[in-house]
Amino acid sequence: MSTRLFFNEVATRDGFQNEGQFVPTDDKVALVDALSLCGFVKIEVTSFTSPKHIPMLRDAEEVMGRIQRVAGVEYTVLVPNLRMPRSRSFAALSEVIRHVNGRVPINVSLSCAFGCPMEGDVPLAELLHWSQRFADLGVRGLTICDTTGMAHPGQVRACVEALQARLPKLQWTLHFHNTRGMGLANVLAAVQGGITRFDSALGGLGGCPYAPGASGNICTEDTLHMLQAMGYDTGVDLPRVLALARQLPTLVGHPVPGQVAQAGRIQDLHPAPAFIHDLMETPA
Amino acid sequence: MSTRLFFNEVATRDGFQNEGQFVPTDDKVALVDALSLCGFVKIEVTSFTSPKHIPMLRDAEEVMGRIQRVAGVEYTVLVPNLRMPRSRSFAALSEVIRHVNGRVPINVSLSCAFGCPMEGDVPLAELLHWSQRFADLGVRGLTICDTTGMAHPGQVRACVEALQARLPKLQWTLHFHNTRGMGLANVLAAVQGGITRFDSALGGLGGCPYAPGASGNICTEDTLHMLQAMGYDTGVDLPRVLALARQLPTLVGHPVPGQVAQAGRIQDLHPAPAFIHDLMETPA
Repeated sequence: MSTRLFFNEVATRDGFQNEGQFVPTDDKVALVDALSLCGFVKIEVTSFTSPKHIPMLRDAEEVMGRIQRVAGVEYTVLVPNLRMPRSRSFAALSEVIRHVNGRVPINVSLSCAFGCPMEGDVPLAELLHWSQRFADLGVRGLTICDTTGMAHPGQVRACVEALQARLPKLQWTLHFHNTRGMGLANVLAAVQGGITRFDSALGGLGGCPYAPGASGNICTEDTLHMLQAMGYDTGVDLPRVLALARQLPTLVGHPVPGQVAQAGRIQDLHPAPAFIHDLMETPA
Repeated sequence: MSTRLFFNEVATRDGFQNEGQFVPTDDKVALVDALSLCGFVKIEVTSFTSPKHIPMLRDAEEVMGRIQRVAGVEYTVLVPNLRMPRSRSFAALSEVIRHVNGRVPINVSLSCAFGCPMEGDVPLAELLHWSQRFADLGVRGLTICDTTGMAHPGQVRACVEALQARLPKLQWTLHFHNTRGMGLANVLAAVQGGITRFDSALGGLGGCPYAPGASGNICTEDTLHMLQAMGYDTGVDLPRVLALARQLPTLVGHPVPGQVAQAGRIQDLHPAPAFIHDLMETPA
């Protein structure tokens, strides 16, 4: 029996919010509906946010109203709050959690958990402290986010082992970016450390549109492809996902970082040129 | 004491041979001379090959004549042979090795060792067989090449463990491509399996110039950056390498796949915007 992994697709939120060009609402709805049939356990569809600040997602209400909900898939949206220090943010979120009172399972994301592009190192003790505080409030799970791609595999392994040892009953999700090329190496370190849930974005969307070639979120299809090759059961239909990934450059108007959609899967072989047969027949 | 790793820089051969635009000879010599001061143990400088087939490297003799040799760095060139089956290639190479008779250490590369884009799977037994045959001839080392980016981390780990167990005295080098995004995950699996020597290309050159965004060899600076962050001693001066990587897009006339040259190192922090200080001062 291969280990079952679980994927949360974030391209239509974490990806599209960074795009320069508006993706038509019909295309967004069609993409989410197609993603719903691929085997993801969650889809982060959009964000209810200021259309002035994130014009790309100004159609959030319409998208949420039009998508077809598939049983077994959780659909989430991002709702930003005011800028505040961690302690005030915790207090505000505590009130939400108390208000919900167990009627809906709560998952909390901790951003910049592996490093902050302004403050630098984030001590593991700090991460354990905030994880414990949310666990004490009864959340179902925590998503540990490497928001700006600063995590390295050694740190990931140590971190996920410490978090799971301290809070073994929480549902842990890892959210990696490929900003410095370490995305899939960090996924490998995380699965080696026992993590089974990941956020990822179709095509590796999520990078800055003004930095061609700069990576964003880890790429869904590349991540699935690696883990399936290693024998994991991702629950996701890779050929279906690849077909969607191959439409992305047209949808967003530029090449996307994902590699497998360009190169094909390991098992997608090329026809051998004629000279190979001559070589095979030549006696040694 | 951190584990010492060793790097062979291949951008000026495996990288440049794939470029569409000729890099001027002066620039090639300057780049190799700059790379010589970075701490690489080997530099694959160029290829003595048909100027008709690889016009980018038609200045191979001049480049080899003009570069400054630095003590402690091995400078290599590729010399292609005729197309032939493995058994004939082995026989021809055996003659070379016998002719050299121990006067120069020999390293043999086995290409497509993890999979062939035309034949598919390459059984580990096959790889062990050819490795043993070269070991019996007295070679110093073998480079196991994932020429077309088909290896996955589980396979890499199993393969390097089997090879080292069978032939523990050989010097093993791993040559990965990032064709399907698994390059650094494969490096991680290889170091976890005890490998200390890698080929890599500045900027991640080596992809096809007609496929924008398609990755080539694993990127030197991204690989060094990850392994240094994990505490390995790469022997290479990363800031110096990054400075060279940042000149590459101008040199080759297009963006290159490497991420760290674009995003900066983990420790290259950004100044905090003013509002951060307000938040820090706000009482909880």
